[in-house]
Amino acid sequence: MLSYEMICAAAKDLQGVARITPLLESKLLNERLGFRLIVKPECLQVTGSFKIRGAYTKIMSLGVGDRMSGVVAFSSGNHGQGVAAAAAAMGIKAVVIMPEDAPVPKLLNTAALGAKVITYDRQTGDRAQIALELAERTGAVLVPPYDDYVLMSGQGTVGLEIADQLDGLGIVADTLYCPVGGGGLIAGIATAMEIRSPQTAVYAAEPVHYEDTKRSLCKGQRIANEAGHGSICDAIVTQMPGELTFPINKRLLSGGCAVTEIEVLSAMQMLMDEMKIISEPGGAVAVASAVQQARQLAGKTVVAVVSGGNADIPWLMRTLARHAVE
Amino acid sequence: MLSYEMICAAAKDLQGVARITPLLESKLLNERLGFRLIVKPECLQVTGSFKIRGAYTKIMSLGVGDRMSGVVAFSSGNHGQGVAAAAAAMGIKAVVIMPEDAPVPKLLNTAALGAKVITYDRQTGDRAQIALELAERTGAVLVPPYDDYVLMSGQGTVGLEIADQLDGLGIVADTLYCPVGGGGLIAGIATAMEIRSPQTAVYAAEPVHYEDTKRSLCKGQRIANEAGHGSICDAIVTQMPGELTFPINKRLLSGGCAVTEIEVLSAMQMLMDEMKIISEPGGAVAVASAVQQARQLAGKTVVAVVSGGNADIPWLMRTLARHAVE
Repeated sequence: MLSYEMICAAAKDLQGVARITPLLESKLLNERLGFRLIVKPECLQVTGSFKIRGAYTKIMSLGVGDRMSGVVAFSSGNHGQGVAAAAAAMGIKAVVIMPEDAPVPKLLNTAALGAKVITYDRQTGDRAQIALELAERTGAVLVPPYDDYVLMSGQGTVGLEIADQLDGLGIVADTLYCPVGGGGLIAGIATAMEIRSPQTAVYAAEPVHYEDTKRSLCKGQRIANEAGHGSICDAIVTQMPGELTFPINKRLLSGGCAVTEIEVLSAMQMLMDEMKIISEPGGAVAVASAVQQARQLAGKTVVAVVSGGNADIPWLMRTLARHAVE
Repeated sequence: MLSYEMICAAAKDLQGVARITPLLESKLLNERLGFRLIVKPECLQVTGSFKIRGAYTKIMSLGVGDRMSGVVAFSSGNHGQGVAAAAAAMGIKAVVIMPEDAPVPKLLNTAALGAKVITYDRQTGDRAQIALELAERTGAVLVPPYDDYVLMSGQGTVGLEIADQLDGLGIVADTLYCPVGGGGLIAGIATAMEIRSPQTAVYAAEPVHYEDTKRSLCKGQRIANEAGHGSICDAIVTQMPGELTFPINKRLLSGGCAVTEIEVLSAMQMLMDEMKIISEPGGAVAVASAVQQARQLAGKTVVAVVSGGNADIPWLMRTLARHAVE
């Protein structure tokens, strides 16, 4: 299982590896929003997302023999870079399986971080199958993207840091929004907040069409998304909640919130204007959710996690320019 | 005079008012550059620049009578917002004198932060004269933008933080670049580094045509810039080094570096891509200088201060899009 103690242990392991990201807020923005918005910018984290926290914690937990055989991961971006950087920090081999149409900078960065990149065809290949076969053949240990308790304990250090930093400021958060794909980050954060700030309601933030966690929380069981939809929020597009993450989230979350692409782009623009940070679409859904829920949040203190910032900058500039005109 | 002890005292005063900004770096970027680049992002500071540090420290040092009369400042942007926010934090009145053609967001933000904004015509008005007359008439205390030892001690807390953070990481910096307008920020930082890290060479970073500090350091005396030039680096465009800042900088700096607009825009783009932060042109000159000097810096550890991030985002997006095409 996942426990608060595991998260505290992970935080010790991560010292000097992951960065303690600050809390950001703007007095003027708070006045405009009508609530106090505190942003936890994991886009400023090593490799541009929170993923190195879980990857490093997981790889650190392996025995010497397993480490010798190296690790393997499948990822279209952030998790792959996290695994590559974590493995490099420990001097062990990493193979990352990525779709051949992944953004070129993400492919190049993963390779530059020291991982061997194997690409596959999204239409015909099954990345999980490829990774499993590779793991069986070479003895490499699979580092899953979210369904692993040790990995979740690493992601949970984001929550531990938020709690420490809020304590330092003498602030109690009423509500916390966190981007959700497979649900590993929010499961870790909610586990930390349960002990450190039980009065804080934790909500899943997802893009419309991919609000599987929101709908699963309503139903009380895991429901998959309907096929046939796309999303600009590539980092958090998953088919259904994780097998291990969902029971934790079912017990600890207060609900979910789904945001449109326009709401996501507006949040990204707001984060550039007011906080001077670049977020990626999937990373900005929590901020977009808080803004969408402004009326209900009036007067409250709200934390929103920005989970990553690996946006395609030229795309972002073109899209925001067009969005501003429309 | 300005002393290390004054800077330590300022850091105590600023607790809970100014944010401790993190240090950012990217392993992949370091490999590409051939040196270790550590960025101090004061664009993430309250009001989007380091200016609140000095403004708050100065206003905090005033007696009760002076505080009752309020403060006045002239500024086209960052200093005005810093003074407005600092005064508001202490519940005292602030008047900020700004050019009527200042960017509208800067005018609105300064007013929204609680200051009374008085505009003047850049062609016919003398902002220093207006501020002095107002100070004489109302008893308000002028908070100068750089030529004040107490104010410089506040700016110097950036250097104190850098030294603390480098110590925490077990790193010694060989070189530090800092954007220079009037020279208050770098004078404070160099004073802190003289005690905490005397082996670090501190360099002034300026835009071409406004490298008055670089040229003054060469000559050993204050030289004004030639008239008739413009610059996108509005935040650090000054006519000559400060009367009080220059003797400090003459004693402590190793030299200066001047960068072109293309170099500044490239640095802003790099900070977006690699560090996920928005800088303003004047804020990015230190990073641009380090990149320009890459060959001489090979293998070294280099700190570059990003002094502010209050860029006009639509302008930035248009300009970078054009710059990328050219």
